Parts: sequence; structure tokens; C-alpha cells
Amino acid sequence: MPVGDSCEFSKVKNVVFMQTKNIAIVGSGLVGSLLAIYLRRRNFKVTVFDRRPDIRQIQFSGRSINLAMSVRGWNALDKVGIGDEIRSLAIPMHKRTMHITGEEAYHQPYGKAGEAIYSISRGVLNRKMITLAENEGVEFKFNEKVWDVDLPSAKIYTGETEKGEWEEYSYDMIFGCDGAFSRVRHKMQRRSRFDYSQDFLDAGYKELGIPPNEDGTYKLDKNSLHIWPRGEFMLIALPNLDGSFTCTLFMPHEGENSFEQLDTEQAILNFWNIHFPDTLSLMPTLLEDFENNPTSALVTIKCYPWTYWNKVALVGDSAHAVVPFYGQGMNAGFEDIFVLNEIIEEFEEGKEDWQDIFERYQESRKPNTDAITELSYRNFMEMSSKTADATFLLRKKIEKHFSNKYPDKWLPLYSRVTFTNKPYAEALHIGNRQAEIMEKVMQLPEIESTWQSAETETFILDLLKNEKG
Amino acid sequence: MPVGDSCEFSKVKNVVFMQTKNIAIVGSGLVGSLLAIYLRRRNFKVTVFDRRPDIRQIQFSGRSINLAMSVRGWNALDKVGIGDEIRSLAIPMHKRTMHITGEEAYHQPYGKAGEAIYSISRGVLNRKMITLAENEGVEFKFNEKVWDVDLPSAKIYTGETEKGEWEEYSYDMIFGCDGAFSRVRHKMQRRSRFDYSQDFLDAGYKELGIPPNEDGTYKLDKNSLHIWPRGEFMLIALPNLDGSFTCTLFMPHEGENSFEQLDTEQAILNFWNIHFPDTLSLMPTLLEDFENNPTSALVTIKCYPWTYWNKVALVGDSAHAVVPFYGQGMNAGFEDIFVLNEIIEEFEEGKEDWQDIFERYQESRKPNTDAITELSYRNFMEMSSKTADATFLLRKKIEKHFSNKYPDKWLPLYSRVTFTNKPYAEALHIGNRQAEIMEKVMQLPEIESTWQSAETETFILDLLKNEKG
Repeated sequence: MPVGDSCEFSKVKNVVFMQTKNIAIVGSGLVGSLLAIYLRRRNFKVTVFDRRPDIRQIQFSGRSINLAMSVRGWNALDKVGIGDEIRSLAIPMHKRTMHITGEEAYHQPYGKAGEAIYSISRGVLNRKMITLAENEGVEFKFNEKVWDVDLPSAKIYTGETEKGEWEEYSYDMIFGCDGAFSRVRHKMQRRSRFDYSQDFLDAGYKELGIPPNEDGTYKLDKNSLHIWPRGEFMLIALPNLDGSFTCTLFMPHEGENSFEQLDTEQAILNFWNIHFPDTLSLMPTLLEDFENNPTSALVTIKCYPWTYWNKVALVGDSAHAVVPFYGQGMNAGFEDIFVLNEIIEEFEEGKEDWQDIFERYQESRKPNTDAITELSYRNFMEMSSKTADATFLLRKKIEKHFSNKYPDKWLPLYSRVTFTNKPYAEALHIGNRQAEIMEKVMQLPEIESTWQSAETETFILDLLKNEKG
Repeated sequence: MPVGDSCEFSKVKNVVFMQTKNIAIVGSGLVGSLLAIYLRRRNFKVTVFDRRPDIRQIQFSGRSINLAMSVRGWNALDKVGIGDEIRSLAIPMHKRTMHITGEEAYHQPYGKAGEAIYSISRGVLNRKMITLAENEGVEFKFNEKVWDVDLPSAKIYTGETEKGEWEEYSYDMIFGCDGAFSRVRHKMQRRSRFDYSQDFLDAGYKELGIPPNEDGTYKLDKNSLHIWPRGEFMLIALPNLDGSFTCTLFMPHEGENSFEQLDTEQAILNFWNIHFPDTLSLMPTLLEDFENNPTSALVTIKCYPWTYWNKVALVGDSAHAVVPFYGQGMNAGFEDIFVLNEIIEEFEEGKEDWQDIFERYQESRKPNTDAITELSYRNFMEMSSKTADATFLLRKKIEKHFSNKYPDKWLPLYSRVTFTNKPYAEALHIGNRQAEIMEKVMQLPEIESTWQSAETETFILDLLKNEKG
């Protein structure tokens, strides 16, 4: 059992051989494994606890949306030199492909030429990250259920059951990377003056699949995120390396078109025939998938503070779980680590002031994760309804046209979030201002025919100028 | 140990001798004891659990704001015929009395002649309510710590410690009346699709005291709620039966004028000399009170749903904890019970459809408790700053003048909340509209001198008319 007495040590000044910090990470998911790699690079002793078995030894499926890695994610991976290894597991998606019943599928590029978001399977990525972390010297303790955490002394209590015998582990610091329903945060939540909220969407989701063709090729365009937008609900599909697509149906739990209604095979087939007839031939396992895969809930979680003294910090979903409609959940978690590391790097190795680091970390990240939380929440409507709306598409075209001509004056919101490392809070703020301007632009008479005109351009330029004044 | 098999019974139709429901209430506070009385009147078997000792056998003090009972509270007490008994323990406060340093204290009536809110000590009231409930045949189990609740089977688990041996109790239904940090709600919160938030104010509070004069008389006007408004912080005092006042200091935890700063006797005395010099002679135990009484946090809690099947329901603070600045926390909890009972009474005794009752109860109450939550939050600024502001006082005078003349057209927000049983949500909505109108009125030129004029009256009448159009 590790003993965390190095903290006492580090208070003694001018010790030549400083004992390194002994750090526990709760959660071996994507954020937990990447944080472990970062901390090993700083030469800390790192142990990762997970209540589940080693994901490399089990079948992983059935309740995960495929991930879309974008610039913030790559940035955090490249910083520790593992970006290229992960890139080999990912498929670039340059565009949305929209499927409207009775119409030809049409595309909408996500950014400029060369810009893409990258589809990657959560299971594939997580397995690779754990192995990379092990190679760095991280110790993983799987099947160790953390039931309690003593915050001021950084102790962890594990055991078979909550009511049974527990084992006690002592550390210098604990990082809670244990996801939306974090045990570490749960312990912090019972303290006074801890702000916390969990909000569930009326909609849930279910994973479905499109297998590859018999020759291993893709049944749909490989380099697209496919969307079947239907207003209150939608189906999406993201490519996998093996020629298959992972699909997700987002739909209300109850009501007219809802999971509750799809309670028989006949009901599912009827529904599919009406709303997604073009996918029926692509989804031979639709009924089995529907039965075997759970219907999962979609939750937004916010809390504050994220840290306890110089002892405990929350990173990733445990601090800020978002709904998946901006594809930024993992990216935001990876950016937490990148920012935390930037603050740590201001200190000489072994002389870190963790109280200061933790305070600056949470103060820096909180406004930004609040912003991506808000943007993610708003984006459900954009994906499920507006992508099928002519006015919305025209608006996007105008923004793109103007942005190409005046790249220093206009970066579309989606691009700022997805293809830059600029703060999310800035993206939200500028995005709101752009939305106000575009409201006015879309009210111009005959905008459908005049959107490329010099007058429209001047109109936008004037609005931008007035704003600054 | 009670066995809750009556549920099975009640499914059998046409049973002549129906076994009555066996109900557990968690929490013997004000809401728990009043709900127990209501349920006994319906002839249910009622057991109340509380983790604390019997409040009648211990000293109760040090962290409670005195309560202000208003119409909603009295309404719920009168319905079961115990209003008059409680009235004998309460002191009517007809007005706010404002204390500004260097000025004469001035009054602001709360409502019309005869209208008042009633000061009552939480401890005195709670002791009386428990005795009244016992007289009705309610069983109380004190010192029984509820650690877990099985929601679908309505089982309660109690024991000395969370990790130790537990006793299991089975009921037909459980009511969680265990306050802002409810164990029952805590169990519901771990389920999927349970919305929850806890938000702490930057300000906390501390109880202090003003003792009676030696002859037992009051040191300040007895029939007032006294306020020393100071902007970011304030002191209030409410009368007790014995000639004393219970005071509460509301102040930020940290910052320039904060609890954190008042960390020595000298700091407290300096602060008091500057901000509350007129109270120093009234508060001989200031320093002892400051040291002995805890600094408590102020929290707003919201959640949904409030019920689980036909098995479990939250009532009072466990469902909606508000900050105390509208004096409506207890009143809202008592109104929960009144409304719940109205729904129950639509059913013949023994033939209640509890699923239906619980659903209608939460749907009816949620928008109203959300509204009083919002109003309570807003009212801190009103009490601590605006009550000392000339414009605010003029505005109140204009509202009152107009309301006296046109009582069917204008009922001030405070009166609607405090002196009627009209829904809180309606009060919030109408209050917002009134605020917009008063904004315009206060911008009239020379309103200070013209506020009683026919022109101002017509101006308000026109705005009211336009709104309806």
C-alpha cells in the first residue's frame, strides 16, 4: 500500500533529493489515461484506479457515440508526442452529409479545404491510450471500486461492495477523472458551498450499426459525418476503420416519436419505413441492435469548485459533462489537461505550488467549459432541425463567403470551436455577436439573390464596424 | 418491525375491510410533523423517523433564523384546526423598521391595516408541532439515522453508522421531509433523468441575540421586523415571546466586509462600531454569540421529479430549498402539504390512486416553488440595499397609493406572496409586469412631487390597459 508522506518532505526547504509526488487518478477512461501520461512526463508516480475491468480484455460496445477528435484534442495529444499514433486510428470527416427522404444527399463542409474532424471509436482509442500510459510507467489497478475519498488527507477507499470491507490507500494528490457520475465529485458535493447541477435532456440515445460491404468497403461516403435530421429526432453515422459505421439515434424518451413508442419490432419497422426508409437496407441488424443496446440518457453537469486544497482536482466529464452535439466532450477534457499542464510547467520540477496550480486551473477552465456546455446544448436544434432548413444553409453560405474574403474579420463559430485553440468563452461571445449580425443580414430584401453582392458585404462590414465603436 | 403488505391488499377489488396504508415520514421538522398530522386525519398509520434526538428534550439554538409565518402557513395550520394554538406562540410584525446610522428609525408597513407577518421561534414551533402530532397518534422514532432508502419497495434502512449494521423497515409509502440535504432525495438523485441543482450564495449568516430588558420588556419595538440594511450585508432582528430578539447577520463569506475578516474580537468590535453602533448597547453577548454560533451557508436547491412511482414523495425543503429573504421557506413547505391534501381529498378514503396523486402534486407545485425560489433570491438585494434607498421607498409609496385606490387593479407583489394564497407563479408573473410599469412611472419628470396626481394615476391606468390589449 503506497504511503503518501512525501508531502511533509516537500515542506522542508533545500532538500536535495526530493521524493516525487505519489498521485492517484480515479478513472482509466480517455481523460484519466492522457492525464496519467502527462504526469509521468513530470516524473510523478502515477496509479490509475478503475472500477471496471481492463477495457483491452473485454468487448466494448453498445452505449457510446463515436468520438469526433478536433484541434483541441490533437493539440493535447501532440504535446506529449502521441498524436500521430492516434491519427492512424482515426478517419477524417471533412463534411456533414445530410440525408433528406426523397432528396439527393447533400454535403456541407465543416471548414476550409484540409480541415476535418476525425472519427474514432471510443473503445479503440481508450485501449491504445492505456497501453501508451503503461509504456510510460503508469500503474493501472482495474476492478478496484473506489467507494469513498477522504479529501483533506487524499485517501482512497476501495472494496468489493459499498457496505463490505474496504482497503485504504494514501496519496499526495488525487485526480477525479471518473466521468459524469464521478465518485470523487460526489464526495465533494456533500460539502457546504459546492455548487452543482445535473440536467437531463428529454431526448436519449441508442447506438445502432451499419456493417461494411462484404468486400470490406463502406456502404456510405467514408469521409462524412452522416445526418438524417428529422426535427425532434435524428440519426447520425460516423465511420470506423473496418468499413462499418457507428450510428446513433437521438430521440425523446416519451411522446409522439419516442423510444417509449418503439416497443415492438413492428413499431420499429413502421417508424423506420416512414422516417429512415433509405437506411433500412444498410442496417441489417437494426432490430437486434435496438433490443441489445440500452437507451441512454443525455446529461449536462456543472459544478464548482473543481479542486480541494492542494489535494484533489476534477478533470474532464467529472467537472463538466456536456451533451454530445458539438463533438467537444473529449476535446474539452483533453484541453483541461493541456491547460493544467501549462500552469504546472511554470514551476520548476519538484517545486510546484499545487494550491496555486489548482486555483488557477479551475479559474481558467470554468468560464470556458461553461461556454462549451451552452454551445453543446444549443447545437441539438442545429443538428436535428436546422441542417435541413434552407435559410440556415443560406446563412452558412453567406458566413463562409464573407469569411473567405475577410478571414481576419469573420471566423465562423463552428470553426472557432472546432479548428482553433481559442478559448470557448471567446467563441461563445463572438458567436453571439455574429448571430445578431446574421439576423439582420437574413432580413435584407431578396437576400437569396443578393448574398454575394458588394452591398451585402458593405452591410456586414458596417455592422462589424459599429459594434466596435 | 412494520411489514408493508397492505399494498398487495389494496389491489384486490371489493375488499370490505381495507387495511390502512402504513406511511413513513423521514424528518420530524416543521413540514414532517404537519404532514404527519394531515395523514393521521386520513387515518393512515404514520411513523416519523429523525436522525436527531427529540427536539423537546434538547437545547435548540444557534443556527436558525426566526420564522415569519404568513397567510399560506396559517392556511395550512387552520385547515387541520391548529392555527389558533400556534398563533398564541407568535408575535405579529406589521412593519419593517429600518435602522440607518445617524438617522431616526423609520417604518414601512408590510400590508394594509391589520395585515402582518408573524415571528415565531423555529424551536418553539417544532416542539409544539411534534406534541400535536403525537396527540393525533403519530409515532416518532428519534435518533434513528436513515442511511438508505429502497425506492421501488419503499424500504428504509437505519443504523448507528453508515458502514455498520442496518435495520430494514418496510412501508407502503415514504415521504422525504428531511430538509435541504435530504437523504431521500439523495437516493433519487443517483437515478438517471433526475434533474438537480444546489447553488450557494456568496453570503452566509450567523445568529446573534438581543436579550430582554431586566423587567422583561423589549429593547426595540416589538411588532417590527428590524433591518439594518448596509448594502452587501445586513443585520435583522425578529421578536421572541420572552422579550428577546433573535438577530441574524447576513454577510459575504469572503471579501472586504466578510465573515473571514471578522476573525478577532477587536475586528468584530471595530466593524460593529463603524456599521452598527446603535446596536452595541443592545447586544451584550455579541462576542460570545459570534464565537459560539456557527457561520452557516445559504443554499438554493431545485430538483425534479419530486416523486417515485406511487411510493416516495419529497415535501418541503427536500424538494425546494430557498434562501430566506422572502420569509417563505416554511410557508411554501406548508402549502405543499395543503395542496397535496386537496388532491388526496378528491378520492374516497381508502381508494386513493397514489400514482395519480403524486403526479398531480408535483406538476402543480413545481412551477410555484420555482417562482418563490426566484423571488427569494432576488429579495436579498431588496432587503439589504433597496430598503435604504429613497427611490425604492417612493416607488413603494406610489404602488401603495394606487393599490388603495384601485385594489382590484393592483395588488403589490409582496402582498400577493405574503397575504394571499394565490399561486407563487402568478405572483412572479404579475410582479414582473408591475415592475416594468413602475420603471416607466419612476422616469416621469418630477415624479417626487406628482406621484399623487391624477396624471400619474391615468398614466398607470393606461399602461395597465395597454398590457391587456
